[in-house]
Amino acid sequence: MELLVTYDVATDTAAGRRRLRRVALVCQAYGQRVQKSVFECVLNPVQLERLKDRLAAEIDPEYDSLRFYRLREPHAQHLEIMGQRPQHDIRDPLVL
Amino acid sequence: MELLVTYDVATDTAAGRRRLRRVALVCQAYGQRVQKSVFECVLNPVQLERLKDRLAAEIDPEYDSLRFYRLREPHAQHLEIMGQRPQHDIRDPLVL
Repeated sequence: MELLVTYDVATDTAAGRRRLRRVALVCQAYGQRVQKSVFECVLNPVQLERLKDRLAAEIDPEYDSLRFYRLREPHAQHLEIMGQRPQHDIRDPLVL
Repeated sequence: MELLVTYDVATDTAAGRRRLRRVALVCQAYGQRVQKSVFECVLNPVQLERLKDRLAAEIDPEYDSLRFYRLREPHAQHLEIMGQRPQHDIRDPLVL
């Protein structure tokens, strides 16, 4: 399934900035960053549960916000972009 | 139709910070802010065109990024939230 993950992490403390970095790292392992706090992910149900578990372990639910939207598929047909776009498509081979 | 609007505006200049404020103001006129740079909107096609025209006039496409996702409807059935959520639902009456 195709998902959009968006987050706000409160970064007014060092702990918050650390949470933000860790949330971004987890999301990067599961999808493509398309904006600073927005990732597109193509996941099976097991991967989705793992992603949610890992993110739940990183955030402070009193201050942070995570939203998971199931997208219309294929999401690219239901998406319009203005301005900058990420340089790599999620389906491209990754060069590390 | 239900849409998610997400944006990144480059704020390393005063002009960029001004663009960010103006993009947020335009989005607020068309939908509900659910995260700092994420809005949920329920729009007809005419409203969507107006929203896109107004945003296109505000951003600098060389530095900023806007993404419009058509959502599965009703979007709330295809959405999972962790942590903080906005205080008002888009369908609640607005108290100004």
